[in-house]
Amino acid sequence: MVYPRPVSTSDPSPSTQPAKPILRALDGEAVSPAPIWLMRQAGRYLAEYRALRESAPDFLTTCYTPDLATEITLQPIRRFGLDAAILFSDILVIPDALGQSVQFAKGEGPMLEPIGPGDVASLQPDRLAGHLAPVFETVGRVKAELDPKTTLIGFAGAPWTLAAYMAEGGGSKDFATARSWAAGDPESFQQLIDLLTGAVIDMLRHQLDAGADCVQLFDSWAGILSAADFETWCVRPAAAIVGALAQSHPGVPVIGFPRGAGYLYGTYVEKTGCAGLQIDHGVPLDQAARLQRNVTVQGNLDPVLLLAGGEAMTAQIRAIRGALGGGPHIFNLGHGVMPPTPPDHVAELVEVVRQADP
Amino acid sequence: MVYPRPVSTSDPSPSTQPAKPILRALDGEAVSPAPIWLMRQAGRYLAEYRALRESAPDFLTTCYTPDLATEITLQPIRRFGLDAAILFSDILVIPDALGQSVQFAKGEGPMLEPIGPGDVASLQPDRLAGHLAPVFETVGRVKAELDPKTTLIGFAGAPWTLAAYMAEGGGSKDFATARSWAAGDPESFQQLIDLLTGAVIDMLRHQLDAGADCVQLFDSWAGILSAADFETWCVRPAAAIVGALAQSHPGVPVIGFPRGAGYLYGTYVEKTGCAGLQIDHGVPLDQAARLQRNVTVQGNLDPVLLLAGGEAMTAQIRAIRGALGGGPHIFNLGHGVMPPTPPDHVAELVEVVRQADP
Repeated sequence: MVYPRPVSTSDPSPSTQPAKPILRALDGEAVSPAPIWLMRQAGRYLAEYRALRESAPDFLTTCYTPDLATEITLQPIRRFGLDAAILFSDILVIPDALGQSVQFAKGEGPMLEPIGPGDVASLQPDRLAGHLAPVFETVGRVKAELDPKTTLIGFAGAPWTLAAYMAEGGGSKDFATARSWAAGDPESFQQLIDLLTGAVIDMLRHQLDAGADCVQLFDSWAGILSAADFETWCVRPAAAIVGALAQSHPGVPVIGFPRGAGYLYGTYVEKTGCAGLQIDHGVPLDQAARLQRNVTVQGNLDPVLLLAGGEAMTAQIRAIRGALGGGPHIFNLGHGVMPPTPPDHVAELVEVVRQADP
Repeated sequence: MVYPRPVSTSDPSPSTQPAKPILRALDGEAVSPAPIWLMRQAGRYLAEYRALRESAPDFLTTCYTPDLATEITLQPIRRFGLDAAILFSDILVIPDALGQSVQFAKGEGPMLEPIGPGDVASLQPDRLAGHLAPVFETVGRVKAELDPKTTLIGFAGAPWTLAAYMAEGGGSKDFATARSWAAGDPESFQQLIDLLTGAVIDMLRHQLDAGADCVQLFDSWAGILSAADFETWCVRPAAAIVGALAQSHPGVPVIGFPRGAGYLYGTYVEKTGCAGLQIDHGVPLDQAARLQRNVTVQGNLDPVLLLAGGEAMTAQIRAIRGALGGGPHIFNLGHGVMPPTPPDHVAELVEVVRQADP
């Protein structure tokens, strides 16, 4: 099934463009076998990643060192021949670039010097391009190394999720501080969201200019918002980002991931115009198939099935392809690869996906 | 609107039963103004709770001291005249009763000695009734104090959420240990779930025998399950619990709360037969109204709006009643009262709800 999609207004030298399976899927094509990549496909579950990190500087400096970030980005591609590489970086490079203190202590989550309404004016969006130049250099280096069939995915954290970490000072079960700020002083919170929306657009444009084929927008904490706040803090900024990229980089697809959106995934697709939708593993397959009528669906194997491997994983891979194989689908997990996952299970997953379609 | 509901097979002396608004709503009646109670209505946001806890023993011992637990349960009823009291206790009294070590350190979440597949056999369901006798005594004492129009709600944690804490040893962002156990060794995990299902039934029957008018089943971590696991670990045990209570206590309503279920709230209602459904604030009101065709909906004001108070709160109260006022609805939050919430805002909420209907 190829579903209607606005015709791209710019398709530079289509005859010389390789037919990257992920871009074909994002263009609405039911590609078979399904192209596949995995969220957190580069990371701690790989021995070569752990080895590299042992002698590497701290986590953020690693993100800002093109030699290291390029190598980490490519590690899972070499091992598994996945259909996409995703830039190795972190969503919190944006607050770091804006001048907020961000640290990753070993074995802990990220720690930020929390900001409040009075701090928004002191954030420095003009620093972003300079501060993140090494990240964009990494994009270019990875691109030069990739097989022409392999898609390079850039990414950014979405404004709400970034704001949540920035206000809270780190991870949280419910981001009560951030949500209280948004409810109690929506004007200043809107200023923060607007500033971040601009920063995300800036960040993603630089990645596209450096060679990314498409981008993914991670709104990891969309699921804790009320339905009304989801529209205000998640959908509206995402729509602005998709719209801005469509102007500067027409035809380049954006994959949105408002994690945990539940009933609201459909609204997100309708109102943002994203070409791809990453769904978490809580979305039942009949609903995923319904969403697929309007968007390329990416997902949604439960990462614990990849951790467990074997028959349970294989059965669910077949169920997912059975439900979504007739439309545009990119195989992925519903959340990131879990650190204790055996790499052999990833190899098995890729093999099964590539043989799953009848 | 009163929607069809199986006729109760036992309604002891209906002529002498007071018409508790919450029970009328759970029976399918569109009660106006909406009856109201709040999750975590007893707790740290109340000065009288903090004062009592200062001189009280540790948290679990407080739960097991009928004098204290009765007083805490009644505090918000005295202040706000809410339509229901909910037993002051904790979902983790069940693992504690089964013999697992459970501790609440000050300012930290709960800490349990985590269990694995080899530990299921050593859990002691026979200890439950004796160990929790003070909890059931509290139910009886609260009942004796309540106005006949005020509903007394008993509760328990649902098997999946209890198992998640028991396997993980405490709270977690993703309960990776528990989910890995369930995926990697579903047989032993099923044994744990079955044991907990029996314990929950036992626990709730004792509360009903002691005077609870209805019960709520809290599956706080249902939202992190895949759609398939949601059926296996959340829906099936809940259906068994609802079925067992319908046998022993016919006509007594169960309110289910598979928090974060998203698309799967409808499945939960259909397959468990619960009389009431608590929904989180992520459920949009049009979907809540759709669910209301088959169940009494309880919810779903965002607790940050209660924290903020004022016009934003009032507008959302009106929106909720506008969407749900035509059917069976119990006003509540989408999650518990946040500790920094000003009690005045709760008083304001109750007043607005009681004046909201035209």
